[in-house]
Amino acid sequence: MITMYELIEKKKHGAELTEEEINWFVAGYVSGSIPDYQASAWLMAVCFSSLSDRETADLTMAMARSGEMQTPNIDGFCADKHSTGGVGDKTTLIAAPIAAACGIYVPKMSGRGLGHTGGTIDKLESIPGFNTALPYEKFISIVKKAGFAVAGQTGSLVPADKKLYALRNATATVDSIPLICSSIMSKKLATGAKGIVLDVKTGDGAFMKTLADSERLANAMVRVGQLAGKKCTAVITDMNKPLGRTVGNSLEVIEAIEALKGNAPADLAEVSLTLAAQMLSLAEKGSDEECMAMAEDAVFSGKALERLREMIALQGGNPNVIDDYSLFGSAERSKEIFAPSDGVISEISCERVGIVSLKLGAGRTTKDAEIDPSAGIVFDKTVGDKVKKGERIAVLYTSSRSNLEELAEEFASVVKIESGISEKRNFSGKNVIKIIKGY
Amino acid sequence: MITMYELIEKKKHGAELTEEEINWFVAGYVSGSIPDYQASAWLMAVCFSSLSDRETADLTMAMARSGEMQTPNIDGFCADKHSTGGVGDKTTLIAAPIAAACGIYVPKMSGRGLGHTGGTIDKLESIPGFNTALPYEKFISIVKKAGFAVAGQTGSLVPADKKLYALRNATATVDSIPLICSSIMSKKLATGAKGIVLDVKTGDGAFMKTLADSERLANAMVRVGQLAGKKCTAVITDMNKPLGRTVGNSLEVIEAIEALKGNAPADLAEVSLTLAAQMLSLAEKGSDEECMAMAEDAVFSGKALERLREMIALQGGNPNVIDDYSLFGSAERSKEIFAPSDGVISEISCERVGIVSLKLGAGRTTKDAEIDPSAGIVFDKTVGDKVKKGERIAVLYTSSRSNLEELAEEFASVVKIESGISEKRNFSGKNVIKIIKGY
Repeated sequence: MITMYELIEKKKHGAELTEEEINWFVAGYVSGSIPDYQASAWLMAVCFSSLSDRETADLTMAMARSGEMQTPNIDGFCADKHSTGGVGDKTTLIAAPIAAACGIYVPKMSGRGLGHTGGTIDKLESIPGFNTALPYEKFISIVKKAGFAVAGQTGSLVPADKKLYALRNATATVDSIPLICSSIMSKKLATGAKGIVLDVKTGDGAFMKTLADSERLANAMVRVGQLAGKKCTAVITDMNKPLGRTVGNSLEVIEAIEALKGNAPADLAEVSLTLAAQMLSLAEKGSDEECMAMAEDAVFSGKALERLREMIALQGGNPNVIDDYSLFGSAERSKEIFAPSDGVISEISCERVGIVSLKLGAGRTTKDAEIDPSAGIVFDKTVGDKVKKGERIAVLYTSSRSNLEELAEEFASVVKIESGISEKRNFSGKNVIKIIKGY
Repeated sequence: MITMYELIEKKKHGAELTEEEINWFVAGYVSGSIPDYQASAWLMAVCFSSLSDRETADLTMAMARSGEMQTPNIDGFCADKHSTGGVGDKTTLIAAPIAAACGIYVPKMSGRGLGHTGGTIDKLESIPGFNTALPYEKFISIVKKAGFAVAGQTGSLVPADKKLYALRNATATVDSIPLICSSIMSKKLATGAKGIVLDVKTGDGAFMKTLADSERLANAMVRVGQLAGKKCTAVITDMNKPLGRTVGNSLEVIEAIEALKGNAPADLAEVSLTLAAQMLSLAEKGSDEECMAMAEDAVFSGKALERLREMIALQGGNPNVIDDYSLFGSAERSKEIFAPSDGVISEISCERVGIVSLKLGAGRTTKDAEIDPSAGIVFDKTVGDKVKKGERIAVLYTSSRSNLEELAEEFASVVKIESGISEKRNFSGKNVIKIIKGY
């Protein structure tokens, strides 16, 4: 007979649990027969003793099987994409229509944002009429037509993760690589896609601050994907500055549309095209270089933009937003930010950008808070750019009662301007740092 | 504002908590405002990151203050004594009357035994009529008259320990030295004695198997005692074999009475006299040598035995048991064990002795199990003794339905006999290994 006491004791002493023990734990925790106080002691022991690759894979699969396992009834290659979360990250809205335009299917289940990184669901809901609460059959039918769709996660998907994540969040046991891996991958495995591309952010603005930790997480996820019989690629990308030039919901959708019109800033283009190309590579559409060329062509031919237009219409949104951004509605107030001195922008703090954006109304401070869809920040300049004193570097937007003067002052410490050209981190312009393939 | 999340996070990263934070935790956990699942995550983090001396002292004092703090209204030096638990440990019944005979007071609150180490309360209850459930005023009045008394712990004493111990027991977070220290010392601090003598057992039959761990625990307890303004001494004693020649409730009381009549086996005499002498030393009765001589004199003069007689009578027991052991009642059945070969006894496994004794009926397997007061084991021979094949080495006693033949067979593996004299651990006859004084 297995007891939770023994499983805690084993993990405390760094011993490896069997697959049977891990299955027993997940089933018992979801059913409520294992109390929270034993689960949290075990989670803390995992934070210290870690889990082996095999244990991580077993935990992930047991979690994936804790609820409904989706099997999209689609005749074609289904790929999924996940980001570990960053500021200004709108790549799903670009990479998914590109992949769709190249003939693969992307049924994307997405979460809402909490804290200073927004969720794709929140961004899409800034489109008038857009609906993300889709019944599964409807969701799949849209994927079949447009090549991709984005829906909110339903409660029946991976209940083990829902319950364990809430407990980890209350017991300071979030930052364990095998636990993060199992949380992300259990949801990916449950959605039934054949290929998974993981965008693992690294840097100051990412959950994983160091490249070493990002690589560890990327490797762990790729291995779990492989062990579960999936094709899996992790792309490690830079998050030492916000991605692209916008932060905020409708502002990011507009930037994504512009990207699909061929007008993306270099960093956003590089990351989005790489993610799309890696999805194509998983579907064996060609070499990495061929896939990249296909992805670029999907943008320049306008085919990817047409996929986005079709998907918006099928999900109830007004597709004319693509041609007329005024349909998003605009913020009531704005505030221009000017460079206080000559120099080069050496740093834009992601975390502080996120906080200012949150205070402007673009994010949620509590789970049930309302979002201001048009609030946010547009940058004229980014890291590595030369600026002259008095030149505009950004504009803040809000419709809420936020004190814009105060936020403008707070924003002053977000952007660091140094005189003289300095060769600093991120000046290289390389945003895709490493690609780890697990197939 | 302090949050439990932060305290867990701090301890996970090995940071030191402030006194205010520790007080907040103990108060919040006892009141129920901090849930078990956060407390258990914190306890597990403590198992890995440990606590500093200062944190341990703060935790211990916060726990001690969580309930009623006793202040015995006694005009004289009050000493307390605690053992970390061993097999055959009846030293309280010997050391306390000796200390009392030498003019100090020992108000001893004691727990019941669980598992294979018996509690002093259970042992004393084998005396017909003996009552350990004493109201506090009555308890103190007996201490004033006899010099010592032994009562069961009441629920209002250190509720924080009661609640934390139950949680630790369910979450595999028992074996942390600062947590063990705070559990033991919070109860000692709450009883209001000025001096505390700690018998820290070490070896196979002890909770602390290695001398290094035993010393760590002893040092931690002594330091906490000092920081709390107590005079405190730890005596590290051997628990690689049962202490004395008996295991079982009335059997151990009889052995204690015999010891007070001057007939103790060497190991039991050494440990009991040392503990008593250290209590006298705390009361500044003289040098260690002088205190030892006083303790020995209390035995040989018969004064200590008279204290025991008086205390038994005052606690409702029949004091005539001291002169007539048949008044204890005897076991219904017994089984003699004979040496299977010539040689020297090189080992008697404490743990297995404990288990056989438990099965004979001398201990409790569950909290509410009934104890057989006359069940147990009497050894004719001990470690280091020469034996001849066929010579009797022990007798098993029981009144329960235990299968004596089976237990005799199990007992065969308890005693190890080797041919030829071997120089092994414990052959030195030294049972007091180290004395650590904290004053």
